[in-house]
Amino acid sequence: MLRIFIVFFLIASPVCALTIDPLPSWKECETKKKILDFVRTVTDKKSKHYVRPSQRVAVFDCDGTILCEKPLYTQFVFARDRVKLLVDKNPELKKNKIFQAAIEGDRKTLAKSGSKGIQVLLGDTHAGLTTEQYEKIVADWMNSAKHPRYKKAYKKCVYQPMKEIIAFLQVNGFKTYIVTGSGRDFMRAWCKQELGIPPNQIVGSSCKLKFEIKDGTPQVCRTKIIDELNDGPVKPVGIQTMIGLKPIVAFGNSDGDVAMLQWTSSNKGKTLCAIVHHTDDVREYSYDKVSHVGHLEKGLELADKNGWQLIDMKNDWKTIFSFDQ
Amino acid sequence: MLRIFIVFFLIASPVCALTIDPLPSWKECETKKKILDFVRTVTDKKSKHYVRPSQRVAVFDCDGTILCEKPLYTQFVFARDRVKLLVDKNPELKKNKIFQAAIEGDRKTLAKSGSKGIQVLLGDTHAGLTTEQYEKIVADWMNSAKHPRYKKAYKKCVYQPMKEIIAFLQVNGFKTYIVTGSGRDFMRAWCKQELGIPPNQIVGSSCKLKFEIKDGTPQVCRTKIIDELNDGPVKPVGIQTMIGLKPIVAFGNSDGDVAMLQWTSSNKGKTLCAIVHHTDDVREYSYDKVSHVGHLEKGLELADKNGWQLIDMKNDWKTIFSFDQ
Repeated sequence: MLRIFIVFFLIASPVCALTIDPLPSWKECETKKKILDFVRTVTDKKSKHYVRPSQRVAVFDCDGTILCEKPLYTQFVFARDRVKLLVDKNPELKKNKIFQAAIEGDRKTLAKSGSKGIQVLLGDTHAGLTTEQYEKIVADWMNSAKHPRYKKAYKKCVYQPMKEIIAFLQVNGFKTYIVTGSGRDFMRAWCKQELGIPPNQIVGSSCKLKFEIKDGTPQVCRTKIIDELNDGPVKPVGIQTMIGLKPIVAFGNSDGDVAMLQWTSSNKGKTLCAIVHHTDDVREYSYDKVSHVGHLEKGLELADKNGWQLIDMKNDWKTIFSFDQ
Repeated sequence: MLRIFIVFFLIASPVCALTIDPLPSWKECETKKKILDFVRTVTDKKSKHYVRPSQRVAVFDCDGTILCEKPLYTQFVFARDRVKLLVDKNPELKKNKIFQAAIEGDRKTLAKSGSKGIQVLLGDTHAGLTTEQYEKIVADWMNSAKHPRYKKAYKKCVYQPMKEIIAFLQVNGFKTYIVTGSGRDFMRAWCKQELGIPPNQIVGSSCKLKFEIKDGTPQVCRTKIIDELNDGPVKPVGIQTMIGLKPIVAFGNSDGDVAMLQWTSSNKGKTLCAIVHHTDDVREYSYDKVSHVGHLEKGLELADKNGWQLIDMKNDWKTIFSFDQ
């Protein structure tokens, strides 16, 4: 009988969640109301906007949307630390401009290097490792390396209000996906633990993998070759490739997310699209049009036209990080 | 109260399934016993081989493993029908040797053309279509085109015993994936309906996709460019890419599945690997070492060494197709 009660409690919990405030880090703003209304409507069988659980797909960009991306993308910082190790072993590598910029903390060059920089840093630094070895290295680093401003492990620099949205959607039958320009395997190393998102729900950039049998042991290894970066118009392609369904919820923060938001809001049913707008230069950072990292210009123009919700970090969020309180 | 009972029934159903024979199309053979024992063991919390639901990943090849692949791979037949339509519109295309072989039913050339043939037939025949349009065409064809020998729709040429295994694993908390050399989008068009396998659980060959906004409508279209075929050593790579976990169950039927079986059986926990051996020339087809389609030689050598179960279609299966009875 106890088991029945537990099951009943679990089934009833989305309803309870609505009454006990599933988004406590949000102020009582328009955005919060829209999110709650949206989820209530698409999960209500009596609503004309009802969506079956199998179709409840929500996609989230990572850097700047759920994870702090300033002063530099987290994976860049990780790669820089890794480059330092590599150069210690082989000083010849210092001739590589991207490697040099990474070591010297030349943020401008790195930010400007864009796709090419990511390719060199993603590919060259970890070629030959098995995916398992790589994920272990990333997980250890995410646990130990500290953000220069907050002095907390990088994985703790997740926005608490976004973490709450992800959990709220999950409990309401949504499959929540990360759709990011960062590396798929980089994300897999920590997203299950921190966000409850399993490896098959990460859509990210990737290097080509290779299957081989080494000393009798089958293994899948990373190569230097980087596939097309999962950013901009590649995001809807990544979504179609990995998910095969058009999302009904999308959260982004930069122009690299515009195509993903357009793709989501072209869904015939009811959709929820939102942009995290970095407006808080006291608790976090304030940036949009003039920033290399998280550049947001087209997105701002299109938000109003397309009915995308702008999330005002300064005014909408009570708490930004879990360690804020 | 009714809801509680329904939930209770659903929870209890895997147990019921074990007592009411979840595999009625199987004779009481060694293979059936091994499958039932395996599932019972890995789902039993008291067993030292217990596997948490999140780690219960089962992979299935398609052609020759769950779907009849003789006299020709189903997707080849589909592409042939499509080529006929294209050539009617543009006779110039007849100069293409692969197209010509497809139209003339030159099975030998097509079977021999292997990867290249698949590339031409997959890529050139549907470039420019949106993935939605393409899946609609495939679904219609799978419903209407008939297998030349069985005179049944192609989607009905699924092996009933394999359909039962897939359903049995699903009800026992497994995520069941198709891992096939055939096209991912080709499979997505019919696998949800026939096998209960959703689009995000199909790992297959693919063409490059392109996002564009056409007349104000965002769309994802197919291009001519074919990615590496998902066969042989590419299968474990596809598994790592799409799933990110090592499977504990794998079913294949040809040498193209050997790497996938090796990858699965390298899992440290208990695994179940099996090869469907085509031994029934009365009810289906009998072939292995000398066949172009579904060539099986290395797999036979390795099965014994690795403890992979050989499924003897003639002697292990009571029924082959649902329309057999």
